Amino acid sequence: MSAIGFATEVGDFFAELARLAGEAVLPYFHTALEVDNKAREGFDPVTAADRAAEQSLRSAISQRYPSHSILGEEFGEQLGTSSLRWIIDPIDGTRSFMSGIPIWGTLIGLWDGTMPLYGMMSQPYIGERYIGGNRETHWRRGAESRILTTRATTSLRAATLFATAPEMFGPDSEAPAFKRLSEQVRMTRYGADCYAYCALAAGQLDLVVEAGLGFYDIAALIPIVEGAGGVVTDWQGRAVTGGGRIIAAANPVIHALALAALGDP
Amino acid sequence: MSAIGFATEVGDFFAELARLAGEAVLPYFHTALEVDNKAREGFDPVTAADRAAEQSLRSAISQRYPSHSILGEEFGEQLGTSSLRWIIDPIDGTRSFMSGIPIWGTLIGLWDGTMPLYGMMSQPYIGERYIGGNRETHWRRGAESRILTTRATTSLRAATLFATAPEMFGPDSEAPAFKRLSEQVRMTRYGADCYAYCALAAGQLDLVVEAGLGFYDIAALIPIVEGAGGVVTDWQGRAVTGGGRIIAAANPVIHALALAALGDP
Repeated sequence: MSAIGFATEVGDFFAELARLAGEAVLPYFHTALEVDNKAREGFDPVTAADRAAEQSLRSAISQRYPSHSILGEEFGEQLGTSSLRWIIDPIDGTRSFMSGIPIWGTLIGLWDGTMPLYGMMSQPYIGERYIGGNRETHWRRGAESRILTTRATTSLRAATLFATAPEMFGPDSEAPAFKRLSEQVRMTRYGADCYAYCALAAGQLDLVVEAGLGFYDIAALIPIVEGAGGVVTDWQGRAVTGGGRIIAAANPVIHALALAALGDP
Repeated sequence: MSAIGFATEVGDFFAELARLAGEAVLPYFHTALEVDNKAREGFDPVTAADRAAEQSLRSAISQRYPSHSILGEEFGEQLGTSSLRWIIDPIDGTRSFMSGIPIWGTLIGLWDGTMPLYGMMSQPYIGERYIGGNRETHWRRGAESRILTTRATTSLRAATLFATAPEMFGPDSEAPAFKRLSEQVRMTRYGADCYAYCALAAGQLDLVVEAGLGFYDIAALIPIVEGAGGVVTDWQGRAVTGGGRIIAAANPVIHALALAALGDP
């Protein structure tokens, strides 16, 4: 199968996966999810929606590409004979989902070994999809589509920084490093989960800096950010091969400046 | 004009105002707004979209109700002969707007003296409207609509708490008070602006606690929260007559518990 043929095929398949995930999760959004959780001692934001979506996606992928591996947040790894691997987070931003705030998304990445190839973020309530790979990132909503480009911001003073929550940073070294960076940027905002990486790809903000991520949280977002001209690494500037501490930047210059501000935590 | 006639009339007029505001602001959303701001020294999130929307809304209200007063965030107060007063925040959540995150909204409240009568939050990118007043709150999206009811959560341990940003609390007394409350709830989240109050009305979360608000930031949201069964006061439990420190709660029990946890800052 040629590279171009594969790209088209993957694009169509992503559209189908977005539809399946939306069908699985939307019935649970804006409903009284809290009933389940009230009974529990702690707070575990794993919902029926997460599991329903991942099962639907795994089944579709296995049927279409039986040799591919699948790694999902809820049901772990299913090893195939191919080096191609699908990485699924059925609902990234579960806390937003459970609070009725529509900036969660279904994340689906396709990797070849340690190389990210394609990634999609689908937000079915708004009806948006962000799809990156092959050095391009597309935004789609209904019949509308756009090719996305990141911003050219080259000073921290002009930069907008996002992170999911201040509590995601460990108090000893991560929180002070994030604070050093935060004090140098124009604006710091919390709470956008995967939507922040997509807004970065769309040229709306400059930096997303996070810690304690799972591989599922970031795998699909790397092609989306990189396809639009951005850079995604860990806090040491190394290629991402798992979760942990992640920095996504609109361009190489703002990436280098942000890494320097974080220091060596 | 009868109360019921007025309610219907106001509902229709709110729909028209939502349409006008959407037409004014949507061309600016997801575009390269940062160009203007880069040139500035500080960071002033006032945009052309804010001003265009408020002008459009003021003009429509003045034409329809020439005797009413109008208070808007951008262009101040226009006094009429009636005690009825429209309070407009053309884009609540300007920072979300400028970062491409679609949880900002146009807020339009109608007050009679110091009493809130009706309020609307319109999110035109998603296509949602939340309209409260007359002891009811409605959610509308296209042809869909629902009557909203807040949650019955009666313990802080089961409660979800929202605030726009940790930096909104003054360090001396507000931040410690918010921290006392935050430590007792199940989950604290930041970043949702006016959308958090609407999600509270929709039964998706339990508390929104904020400080340093303008009157425009809260005037339209009070009827939305109260119409769904919630309570909105200042941090002393008094009726809201302006901006400042605000607590919105899903019901009177969780409101009392949260007030007690905040203490007397």
